[in-house]
Amino acid sequence: MSENGALPLRGKVLTVDTMNANVKKVDYAVRGPIVQRAVQIEKELKEGVKKPFEEVIKANIGDAHAMGQRPITFFRQVIALCTYPQLLDDNKFPEDAKNRARRILQSCGGNSIGAYTTSQGIDCVRHDVASYIQRRDGGIPSDPDNIYLTTGASDGIVTILKLLTAGEGRTRTGVMISIPQYPLYSASIAELGAVQINYYLNEEKCWSLDISELQRSLHAAREHCNPRVLCIINPGNPTGQVQSRQCIEDVIRFAAKENLFLMADEVYQDNVYAEGCEFHSFKKVLFEMGPEYSSKVELASFHSTSKCYMGECGFRGGYMEVINMDPEVKAQLTKLVSVRLCPPAPGQALMDLVVNSPQPGEPSYQTFMKERTAVLSALAEKAKLTEEILNTVPGISCNPVQGAMYSFPRITLPERAINEAKAKGQAPDMFYCMKLLEESGICLVPGSGFGQREGTYHFRMTILPPTDKLKIMLNKLKEFHQKFTQQYS
Amino acid sequence: MSENGALPLRGKVLTVDTMNANVKKVDYAVRGPIVQRAVQIEKELKEGVKKPFEEVIKANIGDAHAMGQRPITFFRQVIALCTYPQLLDDNKFPEDAKNRARRILQSCGGNSIGAYTTSQGIDCVRHDVASYIQRRDGGIPSDPDNIYLTTGASDGIVTILKLLTAGEGRTRTGVMISIPQYPLYSASIAELGAVQINYYLNEEKCWSLDISELQRSLHAAREHCNPRVLCIINPGNPTGQVQSRQCIEDVIRFAAKENLFLMADEVYQDNVYAEGCEFHSFKKVLFEMGPEYSSKVELASFHSTSKCYMGECGFRGGYMEVINMDPEVKAQLTKLVSVRLCPPAPGQALMDLVVNSPQPGEPSYQTFMKERTAVLSALAEKAKLTEEILNTVPGISCNPVQGAMYSFPRITLPERAINEAKAKGQAPDMFYCMKLLEESGICLVPGSGFGQREGTYHFRMTILPPTDKLKIMLNKLKEFHQKFTQQYS
Repeated sequence: MSENGALPLRGKVLTVDTMNANVKKVDYAVRGPIVQRAVQIEKELKEGVKKPFEEVIKANIGDAHAMGQRPITFFRQVIALCTYPQLLDDNKFPEDAKNRARRILQSCGGNSIGAYTTSQGIDCVRHDVASYIQRRDGGIPSDPDNIYLTTGASDGIVTILKLLTAGEGRTRTGVMISIPQYPLYSASIAELGAVQINYYLNEEKCWSLDISELQRSLHAAREHCNPRVLCIINPGNPTGQVQSRQCIEDVIRFAAKENLFLMADEVYQDNVYAEGCEFHSFKKVLFEMGPEYSSKVELASFHSTSKCYMGECGFRGGYMEVINMDPEVKAQLTKLVSVRLCPPAPGQALMDLVVNSPQPGEPSYQTFMKERTAVLSALAEKAKLTEEILNTVPGISCNPVQGAMYSFPRITLPERAINEAKAKGQAPDMFYCMKLLEESGICLVPGSGFGQREGTYHFRMTILPPTDKLKIMLNKLKEFHQKFTQQYS
Repeated sequence: MSENGALPLRGKVLTVDTMNANVKKVDYAVRGPIVQRAVQIEKELKEGVKKPFEEVIKANIGDAHAMGQRPITFFRQVIALCTYPQLLDDNKFPEDAKNRARRILQSCGGNSIGAYTTSQGIDCVRHDVASYIQRRDGGIPSDPDNIYLTTGASDGIVTILKLLTAGEGRTRTGVMISIPQYPLYSASIAELGAVQINYYLNEEKCWSLDISELQRSLHAAREHCNPRVLCIINPGNPTGQVQSRQCIEDVIRFAAKENLFLMADEVYQDNVYAEGCEFHSFKKVLFEMGPEYSSKVELASFHSTSKCYMGECGFRGGYMEVINMDPEVKAQLTKLVSVRLCPPAPGQALMDLVVNSPQPGEPSYQTFMKERTAVLSALAEKAKLTEEILNTVPGISCNPVQGAMYSFPRITLPERAINEAKAKGQAPDMFYCMKLLEESGICLVPGSGFGQREGTYHFRMTILPPTDKLKIMLNKLKEFHQKFTQQYS
């Protein structure tokens, strides 16, 4: 204080100039400026502002329930029972739901889902996850000690990236990610101060992954950093491709040869729609390649309650399985996750139900299967519909949506629009998507938020709106694109 | 690959030598080696291994439900209703619970708690939090835009520390924390590569905070880093003190003078037991000090669903309020939290109920108040009991447990025990606590895990076990301490 007792005139302790520089570099397009504008527009509509549309359709994020998908009854029954165990005496709830709830509660401290769980996750849930993986992968063993429950898949991905980030300057950890990518990866890499290494998916071949491109990208990166991690999203986000077994084998061979840690983001493992496509887990392919690979290649694979047929994003449930992780590093991982105490227990319980769903003969089986199948067939239908309608629009070309929940069509933009965008300091596809939002209420994410080859433009659109609404949306988009093209030609 | 196609013999990509060096420095005593041993012992007991005790009593962590505390009925009813809205037609549930659930669901995308929420948290919950703070602080306004819902308080604390961490070498951000401290702070500081600055609480004056000690600590730190943050835990963890209004005012004055960002960890705000003690929020005191302070001092304060009378740790609910944060930094904060999409929705809903609990005249009010009061009076009784019994033991001296959920008594250890511990490479109080665990099944955390003045020894013990069990535990501890002292004298 100065002598007269007044406080010295000083600025803020924390300003953009003095804050964490890595955080400033973080970008997250899925909830970026376009979504903020969408929220504003929704408010304006509520306040009675006139718009050329009546509602905002948010096709920017894979949020199934927000788009009207109903929760799976069995899952919610069990979570309600876990939350309020007095309902265990209620005969409105089926016995299998009660059994699941009792089993989960018995694994909780004080039989309460309000107790902290172990940091790695509830024991019985980790066992159920391991059994699920083993069944899914044709009997290849899975060890519950290798399972870590997480706060959504994002949490697991960031944790593994954190462990892997080391070195300075030219020895700094490089992380190979596909372009287009899901921006959690670029954001986490920026936050951790690791080096982002781009490898491009081949749009001409339905967003497939070429090993020669991996090789090119790796060699270029070795000039300036230490590439140690290869991230794969399969089925692809935002690009919706499903990788062939051969491709996965090639990727594993590449990782082994080049000494890369593999991170397999497999949160869309149930979302495979296209004929001839099938989900192959990296774990399964790795083990089928024999001990030379299965005893060597380090792999972390991620799953979540947020996608597939359940779409329970709000619960933030997830797991990861780590394979061939150095035991000392695993001890460090276990220590690291203990600082945050535990993932949310309701999310853990939900993850348990996903991997231990009703079985034939159990009272909830038929309803469960009916609900599950309905969601997945509707998604398959909408995937096809999206591709078909978009491809009728001159200037839009869309690869088949083989899996996941998104289309990522390429758009041709008139030179004049590109120039106007650049004059405004906007990415041309951001300019396009903003105009689309203002004129039609459709909220998409511009391709620039995911990365794309220089000079190409895209957007990501979820296939989640109900079929009738999706059709309306696609037709509005068609109209908009034609008008936009005319206006700027 | 070598020419014959065999893979080169290489080690792991990720080893303790090549992993993130900051992560290696992380320590988290509350779930450290002693707890791992406790879990092992529990397994051994189950397998029939003979021990001098029948069960492990985990007094290492503030986990009320695990210690037998029952959830608040109203809270669980509302969460069950939100989870399984079919129950809204069930007349077993009171109308006020149904109204709360309906209100929360209306704020969720697709009326489902399974949808992502906005990254800052559900709108109506943030409004309710702001109203709560305003009521709590005698009408001082709170702006919902300054409220961020979090995944437990830990998440908020780490996020703010992350924003504040910048610079290199002598300009690296220094973070002042009390010693003893809650190890989330030291762990996060280590992980972020910030500089930990210790200020010591005054054990002789019931763990109070002396401004002269803050001054000493700050001046020493300025020699080697850039101190920018002052963290306070009130009521104190692990030390259980409740700060006086005067002390808080002095701390704020100090932060203003020295240009420090204040972080107030106030998760135990309802846990005040001692006569003459009262909880004062930093926010309230700051605003009562007038515009010279209230318009200037940057403050983040944290709350959680895990402590107080509810003890809902597993839900990972929490919030933070930021005051006087630079608007550009706030935009960066909002962007940063968006990368993780959103805090768990059930935890957000629970946070809402904590800040918007049943009111007089509502059907659940009486039961709620009865349950709340029962928990808080039992805790007050156990706080007193713990202090009293511990102080009857020669060689143990325990400050009054004025608040929070822990006692942190000082223990006198015989020279021979200290030497034996050192020979084993163990902290002497870790040696003591390990022996206690092996011989009596009581799991405590050694003082060395929280920090303490050189040459002093302590442990942290929760006051959460049910009264009868707590008495048994305290008497076992007494016996053990006497035996231990004899053995090593």
